Amino acid sequence: MPDDATNTPDPGHAAKIDPSAPLPETMRAWVLGGPEELSLQEKPLPRPGKAEVLVRVDAVAICATDLEILKYGTPALIEGGPPFHKNFTPGHEYMGTVAALGPGVDEFAVGDRVTVEIHAGCGQCKRCRMGMYTSCHNYGKNYGDQNKGHRANGFTTDGGFAEYAVNNINTLIPVPDTMSDEEATLVVTAGTSMYGLTELGGLVAGESVVVIGPGAIGLLAVAVAKALGAAPVILVGTRESRNAIGRKLGADHVIDARNEDVVARVKELTGNGADYVVDCAGTETTVNQSVHMTNRGGRICLAAFPKSAVSFDLGALAVNNIYLYGIRGEGKSATHRAMAFMQAGRFDASQIHTHTFPLEDLPEALRYARDRVDDAIKVVVSTRPGLAGGAKAR
Amino acid sequence: MPDDATNTPDPGHAAKIDPSAPLPETMRAWVLGGPEELSLQEKPLPRPGKAEVLVRVDAVAICATDLEILKYGTPALIEGGPPFHKNFTPGHEYMGTVAALGPGVDEFAVGDRVTVEIHAGCGQCKRCRMGMYTSCHNYGKNYGDQNKGHRANGFTTDGGFAEYAVNNINTLIPVPDTMSDEEATLVVTAGTSMYGLTELGGLVAGESVVVIGPGAIGLLAVAVAKALGAAPVILVGTRESRNAIGRKLGADHVIDARNEDVVARVKELTGNGADYVVDCAGTETTVNQSVHMTNRGGRICLAAFPKSAVSFDLGALAVNNIYLYGIRGEGKSATHRAMAFMQAGRFDASQIHTHTFPLEDLPEALRYARDRVDDAIKVVVSTRPGLAGGAKAR
Amino acid sequence: MPDDATNTPDPGHAAKIDPSAPLPETMRAWVLGGPEELSLQEKPLPRPGKAEVLVRVDAVAICATDLEILKYGTPALIEGGPPFHKNFTPGHEYMGTVAALGPGVDEFAVGDRVTVEIHAGCGQCKRCRMGMYTSCHNYGKNYGDQNKGHRANGFTTDGGFAEYAVNNINTLIPVPDTMSDEEATLVVTAGTSMYGLTELGGLVAGESVVVIGPGAIGLLAVAVAKALGAAPVILVGTRESRNAIGRKLGADHVIDARNEDVVARVKELTGNGADYVVDCAGTETTVNQSVHMTNRGGRICLAAFPKSAVSFDLGALAVNNIYLYGIRGEGKSATHRAMAFMQAGRFDASQIHTHTFPLEDLPEALRYARDRVDDAIKVVVSTRPGLAGGAKAR
Amino acid sequence: MPDDATNTPDPGHAAKIDPSAPLPETMRAWVLGGPEELSLQEKPLPRPGKAEVLVRVDAVAICATDLEILKYGTPALIEGGPPFHKNFTPGHEYMGTVAALGPGVDEFAVGDRVTVEIHAGCGQCKRCRMGMYTSCHNYGKNYGDQNKGHRANGFTTDGGFAEYAVNNINTLIPVPDTMSDEEATLVVTAGTSMYGLTELGGLVAGESVVVIGPGAIGLLAVAVAKALGAAPVILVGTRESRNAIGRKLGADHVIDARNEDVVARVKELTGNGADYVVDCAGTETTVNQSVHMTNRGGRICLAAFPKSAVSFDLGALAVNNIYLYGIRGEGKSATHRAMAFMQAGRFDASQIHTHTFPLEDLPEALRYARDRVDDAIKVVVSTRPGLAGGAKAR
Repeated sequence: MPDDATNTPDPGHAAKIDPSAPLPETMRAWVLGGPEELSLQEKPLPRPGKAEVLVRVDAVAICATDLEILKYGTPALIEGGPPFHKNFTPGHEYMGTVAALGPGVDEFAVGDRVTVEIHAGCGQCKRCRMGMYTSCHNYGKNYGDQNKGHRANGFTTDGGFAEYAVNNINTLIPVPDTMSDEEATLVVTAGTSMYGLTELGGLVAGESVVVIGPGAIGLLAVAVAKALGAAPVILVGTRESRNAIGRKLGADHVIDARNEDVVARVKELTGNGADYVVDCAGTETTVNQSVHMTNRGGRICLAAFPKSAVSFDLGALAVNNIYLYGIRGEGKSATHRAMAFMQAGRFDASQIHTHTFPLEDLPEALRYARDRVDDAIKVVVSTRPGLAGGAKAR
Repeated sequence: MPDDATNTPDPGHAAKIDPSAPLPETMRAWVLGGPEELSLQEKPLPRPGKAEVLVRVDAVAICATDLEILKYGTPALIEGGPPFHKNFTPGHEYMGTVAALGPGVDEFAVGDRVTVEIHAGCGQCKRCRMGMYTSCHNYGKNYGDQNKGHRANGFTTDGGFAEYAVNNINTLIPVPDTMSDEEATLVVTAGTSMYGLTELGGLVAGESVVVIGPGAIGLLAVAVAKALGAAPVILVGTRESRNAIGRKLGADHVIDARNEDVVARVKELTGNGADYVVDCAGTETTVNQSVHMTNRGGRICLAAFPKSAVSFDLGALAVNNIYLYGIRGEGKSATHRAMAFMQAGRFDASQIHTHTFPLEDLPEALRYARDRVDDAIKVVVSTRPGLAGGAKAR
Repeated sequence: MPDDATNTPDPGHAAKIDPSAPLPETMRAWVLGGPEELSLQEKPLPRPGKAEVLVRVDAVAICATDLEILKYGTPALIEGGPPFHKNFTPGHEYMGTVAALGPGVDEFAVGDRVTVEIHAGCGQCKRCRMGMYTSCHNYGKNYGDQNKGHRANGFTTDGGFAEYAVNNINTLIPVPDTMSDEEATLVVTAGTSMYGLTELGGLVAGESVVVIGPGAIGLLAVAVAKALGAAPVILVGTRESRNAIGRKLGADHVIDARNEDVVARVKELTGNGADYVVDCAGTETTVNQSVHMTNRGGRICLAAFPKSAVSFDLGALAVNNIYLYGIRGEGKSATHRAMAFMQAGRFDASQIHTHTFPLEDLPEALRYARDRVDDAIKVVVSTRPGLAGGAKAR
Repeated sequence: MPDDATNTPDPGHAAKIDPSAPLPETMRAWVLGGPEELSLQEKPLPRPGKAEVLVRVDAVAICATDLEILKYGTPALIEGGPPFHKNFTPGHEYMGTVAALGPGVDEFAVGDRVTVEIHAGCGQCKRCRMGMYTSCHNYGKNYGDQNKGHRANGFTTDGGFAEYAVNNINTLIPVPDTMSDEEATLVVTAGTSMYGLTELGGLVAGESVVVIGPGAIGLLAVAVAKALGAAPVILVGTRESRNAIGRKLGADHVIDARNEDVVARVKELTGNGADYVVDCAGTETTVNQSVHMTNRGGRICLAAFPKSAVSFDLGALAVNNIYLYGIRGEGKSATHRAMAFMQAGRFDASQIHTHTFPLEDLPEALRYARDRVDDAIKVVVSTRPGLAGGAKAR
């Protein structure tokens, strides 16, 4: 059951680490067995290599893809990696405190509070050389003879449902002491939203942005678009509780997809269609709405993964010179830009944080997230829930 | 029946116009009646306005969209324009000689040989202000009280199946005397291919490019990609006669889509998938092939209009960070870049020109183009077929 | 002497125009004679053409370049225009109310409150076709036989030190009723700052930005950079009164150029140099500081015009892969993005507005601006000073 | 003295390496002592690390910066590196054969012919994460406790005036067997020219490009601009022998800077100034010419390093919205694009290769390069001069 402490940030969020204290030999970590099998075990403490640090995980948020990995296993691409998710530790939206440095690392110090993004590219492939490290052509190759150094923590390398995790320094973002652990876990989600808007061009001030789907990424896409000056920002959703949060995060208009003709309403609100659409639902209905509500020369970011092929009006896309970008997670240092806005108080990401559980209650936390118990949006698991916050009274 | 003169360019292609000779009051022009009704009529000579010139049409090529307009009428967007294509003159791939200047025009002189691109934007909307004049938000508005000055000759304003046509100077590209009339009509097609590669980023030297569909745009996409240094350039087609032309225009590899697993073959040829794909077929099969053959972070240009919704694997697009651009025709001055390569002899666009008919034989020319009679690809109608060239012996 | 009414915005800023009331035949306008000669005269009311409106000027701010024009005349480029500034009306930072529409204009209605940007491109040249309308290659050509339609109001075509002015609709930005006349005159200044940051890439959240020179453009560059999420934002100035306004507008650090080693201090504050520098001073000292304080691969925007050649360390620019952009005024619709932030209350541009005078006191207003009387920054001339605001008590 | 064998490429350029043969323990390498001191010594064979290979150097070209390093030492930035160039091996324009692989490397195989670019970024800094690896913020840090993995072979890490050199795989470009050793050494020079045009936007087909300074980079900038379709391509030089090579490489016009008014002539040839200028001379005269010959909104690449501050007309840059990019060497994988054009035979880079010497005659080769003996442009030092080519009869 969630603890009901409040979430008020305070200047003393940082939990000190004594750099002279020895690190433990082992740690508690949740590991996968067969599908839907998750158990809390003792694992050896991992060691950071060159350009890596060891992070003591203080809090980790649950994402819908965590539920997918639990069910279907890690991405099939891991070559030389563990067989179907045996012994793998998922969890990718975590934050914590630097506990040890790899050789030569001086960009961070033990005790630094950090939050993480998922992907560290190999640094050698064509995409990494272009700065597109989340499109690394060596995705999944961190094992055996062909270790190319790519990491996608929680996807292809061990993640954050554990007491410690290793991270490439490329994935670290400093966390100010005034930010709560829970809010800091939301940076990768906000960074994903920011990345979507980055790929759409980034210069959205005064332009119309429609966000479809008030899940975590969608709600923070509303917040980020608003922070970037977009106007109007229009949210399309079906659950009033979610739509209400969208309004708090900056939506100028909310369209209830159950009761309104979404495309007609967007055209009414924008004149001749939206300049930018971020589709965070990714259903057959929403992707077609996206194309039909976008004006000539406009741009769509698809930030969700339709599970199967959808019947899609590609002709309308071509005839209207529309650009469609598919994104998987964050990229191009967008997490840093998201953190800059969060640190400046430009939006309150913690609006989407609903519950906190201790690490040992991860299964219950997953149930809250999966079944949206008690209107759960972002459920966080914490190694120090009493210190860091708890279920929020909204 | 096509005339069989050869197509050898000669330095005397330009047919002089005497600037002191009076222009006729009327001209011959093909005009639409009901669907599939086309008749050759006398029309008043149009008058060029500010920033416009009158072009004496010397040759005009037939495009697949001409056949569509004949069948379905002009785009429905024309507000205040003529009722369902009554009296409208189609034809958009034309070239000719400047015959008269609008007030204040000094960018061109009477007698200049020019070829044309289709779109002149309104210059006032958001997209025109961004340089995206082919995505003009006032598309079709060249009539009545709300005349915004947008022109898409042959689509929304009278085109080139006539002796004369008015053109905004923005749509004119100078033609060197060494280039034949027929070759000059191909600039807008090459410009469309170039625009596709421009939207894909333009820096394709040494990158792999797959072109699907050896129609006119596809074949010239092969030529343009090769001219830009792409390697390898791979063409996917089903008709051997077309594929053979693709090889002449620079395809390093040709995949016969009837006999090979296209996606597997592209991966074999490229290692881990294509960097760029230009889909000029736009069928359900090809768009899905496009997504599946593109590597992470790669880009697809959709240069064809699927007539109806297609079942499309959008999930693969998102999970692989793929960018998809739909384009309608040319844009961003790509016709000028295409002409620069053609003028420099970097590729021989006339490889796709197969037949020339006199203007009065337009219906027969349309039949050749529609039914691919005698392996027709680009069929040209000329007001001076004896001078300009004819059916080519290939 | 300035009127001392307060500047508090109120919802009733808009002064209604009765569309049925006839317009006057003439208007009062300040016109140039010889150098430094300015006289208030009656001029015929100008008539808006296609894509133009007549704006009743409600307020106009004074810019340093107005003082230059008064001294040196309008840019020499005006071909076929008036001889050395005889009868020319300067003034380019104005706002007002739409008083009449040119033929076909439906984008605006009589009575709309608008503010303006300076440049309307010809729409035909290479730069306009690329969306770079402030780099129009037909700059100054709005006269005689070669009228290409370019306008730079207050520079090459009559401006806003008058009761009415004609504007291309491309130059209009709607003003919300809650914004005071004076604040609305600042949009083109904020738009210039925004354009500088746009050319620097626009994605500055979390990146370090140094602004040199706390003039009007520099102070608003601080505000815009902060609104875009830049951190830290560092202002370099010499006058403490100006620096104090910079702090209010969002500067995280202010460097007093008289007492500190500017380059060393920037390196101390940023670690290894600034990511972006906006130089709004443009002196030999500041441009060299700019190059030396920018880190490898960083970018500099030069938003001021050094009057003569300066001794400049170009070698350091090359060896460090630095990009340097020179800008003249606004561009790429940056005024719209600036207004979006101003309308959203993201920064208070009116911090730089110091004085308001009635139109007939323009000479005195110019003296305040030129001599910085009473610490003047932005001095506004208003046709309705009692209604719109006045000298601010700061 | 140069060997006089001809330079005709043949299909058997590749010199086989027997992967089973043991590598030597030591190698011959030229090393720096004090200024202008260079001696041929035995050094231990370096060992490739992760993501690195050992290259057997087959040929290495001399660049003007080699002469600078010999005189002034390596860049001062090397922290923890050797004291003033003691024991350092310069040389950065080399090519050769892969002789050994670092752990985990499967991108290349022993025996592969490769040429190199200079820079391998650290992969961790802000610029490397953006794809700007030649602007790496850890430049020079490849030593001691703060080894960040940056390499600039021949500048901060040992280079190619030796029998073997270690290279990060990011710096390798495969060489086709049909290309001579000498031509392959020119890829980094052509890549620098290509990088300049990349930074200028890359889409230069049909646009005017002026190249100032017919040194090696300038001459290949002419070739690359022409290959990209630029028209006209204008070369500005003073030595007729160099200008003649520029014509062979594609210059449409050559301006003799001694006898003509360069700016006036460019304006005459282009109408209203150049769209793009690549200044490869970098003198006070040429940088000011560059600004004055560039049209509004045009772009300049400064590809040379003025040794001291120059008197520069920055005002003209700002008033004309001109963009100025400084580049140090290659970047953004431009070497790969250059090789794609060279491999396709789009230009003959070997036009600038004039002499070949054996490795032991490096001092004489340097003299030829420094003093332009016998009109030397690119002087190559080869470990197998008999096999690879020699002084060319031009």
